[in-house]
Amino acid sequence: MSKLTDARVPFQHEMRVAWADCDPAFIAYTGRIPYWGLEAIDAWWEHHAGYDWYALNVDRGIGTPFVHLCLDFTAPVTPRHKLFCEVTLVKLGQKSIRHRVIGRQDGKDCFSGEFVSVFVATSSFTSREPPEDLLAIFQALEAG
Amino acid sequence: MSKLTDARVPFQHEMRVAWADCDPAFIAYTGRIPYWGLEAIDAWWEHHAGYDWYALNVDRGIGTPFVHLCLDFTAPVTPRHKLFCEVTLVKLGQKSIRHRVIGRQDGKDCFSGEFVSVFVATSSFTSREPPEDLLAIFQALEAG
Amino acid sequence: MSKLTDARVPFQHEMRVAWADCDPAFIAYTGRIPYWGLEAIDAWWEHHAGYDWYALNVDRGIGTPFVHLCLDFTAPVTPRHKLFCEVTLVKLGQKSIRHRVIGRQDGKDCFSGEFVSVFVATSSFTSREPPEDLLAIFQALEAG
Amino acid sequence: MSKLTDARVPFQHEMRVAWADCDPAFIAYTGRIPYWGLEAIDAWWEHHAGYDWYALNVDRGIGTPFVHLCLDFTAPVTPRHKLFCEVTLVKLGQKSIRHRVIGRQDGKDCFSGEFVSVFVATSSFTSREPPEDLLAIFQALEAG
Repeated sequence: MSKLTDARVPFQHEMRVAWADCDPAFIAYTGRIPYWGLEAIDAWWEHHAGYDWYALNVDRGIGTPFVHLCLDFTAPVTPRHKLFCEVTLVKLGQKSIRHRVIGRQDGKDCFSGEFVSVFVATSSFTSREPPEDLLAIFQALEAG
Repeated sequence: MSKLTDARVPFQHEMRVAWADCDPAFIAYTGRIPYWGLEAIDAWWEHHAGYDWYALNVDRGIGTPFVHLCLDFTAPVTPRHKLFCEVTLVKLGQKSIRHRVIGRQDGKDCFSGEFVSVFVATSSFTSREPPEDLLAIFQALEAG
Repeated sequence: MSKLTDARVPFQHEMRVAWADCDPAFIAYTGRIPYWGLEAIDAWWEHHAGYDWYALNVDRGIGTPFVHLCLDFTAPVTPRHKLFCEVTLVKLGQKSIRHRVIGRQDGKDCFSGEFVSVFVATSSFTSREPPEDLLAIFQALEAG
Repeated sequence: MSKLTDARVPFQHEMRVAWADCDPAFIAYTGRIPYWGLEAIDAWWEHHAGYDWYALNVDRGIGTPFVHLCLDFTAPVTPRHKLFCEVTLVKLGQKSIRHRVIGRQDGKDCFSGEFVSVFVATSSFTSREPPEDLLAIFQALEAG
């Protein structure tokens, strides 16, 4: 059950946009969108690495604090359609990882952005390289 | 009660960071930080323009949807100290406004970023220029 | 495509619990649980009535502000398993509706509670009876 | 600097309600209200016990997971006024504590409810009695 095979198919995370997410402008509140981008990256981890952030922290002692995020908003997000967040690994650094997230509703791009996190040992909160098994997965995805 | 006089003193919004904001890494969850940046800009509006976003929408029929945000995270945010978000108007476009937000705890920069929003008429969700009274306030701040 | 037929099968809403939902105790933060209960009721509306709260408000001019909620927490919620929220209509009043929500992970009850909302006309925010078509759906569910 | 003296003055926590908290009904979203109630109790801990939940967990090894909450909503909450949450200790059990929270805006009650949490050792997540120093504070408050 290697995860290496699906590197060329971009991962998509489906989400339900709700009344709870909307502000009085009848669209999703801006602050919700970074949340969704992050949640989609968490789901990407679960899908590709076999660990969501919770398992990665608790079971492997690895954290991934973010150092940067940047987003452009091109169309409002509403509860009228499901939200699909496509996540791709853009760049694997020695101790960091950069993802791109594109959010779409009804086939239309609503937002896109990049998120950079670094690998840390949870015990010391100091930066580290990713372990061999995850490195192999990431390198295959980057090549894919 | 002119707001024009305090243009050279950067506006600071004080916030309480809580247990509720933290994730199992014992620091504020990344997704909370754009929220705080936005909340600080909302407070900036209330302080300088005399309208928070709610009043601006309801009482003036003006919305300010965001088209861009970009943040760098340089130190973890925790409940150990109050969070102070300094907000400055960086650039006033014809139909847009760019703010810089710097978040500090205990005298140390924790994050900084820029947020761009556009002015729209809430009735039509189409872009517009800001009204005269707000324009005067913004221009004084930009010059300040 | 009548919705009347499935009254005896309790509706279940599946949710992903994430790192973002957890506090430093490594379990979902208490404040998230009422959110999930509400989201499950919103999904119940979409499933049974054909309108989520957003569509109900925008397309039908009907709001459902809450007047009461009560929850018991019996086991921690974590990202280790999907969360399933079972929603049932407990009581239909003349101008109100009471739902029960039971949250389960891995076959185990984690929380349960009741939520009461009232029907209002969005134009006036005054209470009203539900319209005929929705009344028929609710009465069938209550009988089911 | 004993905290024992102010037992008869109910603690009030002031909060800013914002655009971010409101849904398309132009009022605070129901799900936000349990959050505010919890945040006010966290602030009560900081004020009376000298530990907010974060410090209580990290510095004292004591957690306070919730087993029950119940709320009635009597008036909408909006950004038009500050929100004041009055928190009182209602009952101190051997291993549990019950708080009442009343939320007010502009002198008017908007919501009220009760929250019950239990004391646990964070190392084992098993219930325990509160330590002597906190017990003394709580007993004085209960008597007050």
